[in-house]
Amino acid sequence: MTFFFFLVQLRKPLVEKQRRERINSSIEQLKSLLGPEFLKQQPDSKLEKADILEMSVCFLTQLELPAHTEKTTLVKHY
Amino acid sequence: MTFFFFLVQLRKPLVEKQRRERINSSIEQLKSLLGPEFLKQQPDSKLEKADILEMSVCFLTQLELPAHTEKTTLVKHY
Repeated sequence: MTFFFFLVQLRKPLVEKQRRERINSSIEQLKSLLGPEFLKQQPDSKLEKADILEMSVCFLTQLELPAHTEKTTLVKHY
Repeated sequence: MTFFFFLVQLRKPLVEKQRRERINSSIEQLKSLLGPEFLKQQPDSKLEKADILEMSVCFLTQLELPAHTEKTTLVKHY
């Protein structure tokens, strides 16, 4: 049991690294999807992570979401 | 100049806290926008931050973005 606990502790930084990589990769993808239009509207923006996420929220709130989500598969297929 | 540098250093944790709060608030909003539909498709999902962001990317890639972004204002008005 102690050895198992040791292994779990050893894996923690790796799992955390993978989690951060998934988050950063998604934010980069959101940036490439919405960034060009955003920069047209705010050319001087530095486009930080927080900006990218706020602009994604803005974009999604302006859509009629229920109508779209019915036609859309939100689950990523690995 | 040294006192100014000291003030900048003093403000850093506050600025970082605000940055994290903006990021977390946006992820929570994305969750409330897309989460219900996602949970219909994957009821057992824990919906971690990375899941929410990946599902946002999935959703946006399935839209015809140029057509939508033309009609949409991406800039948040404070």
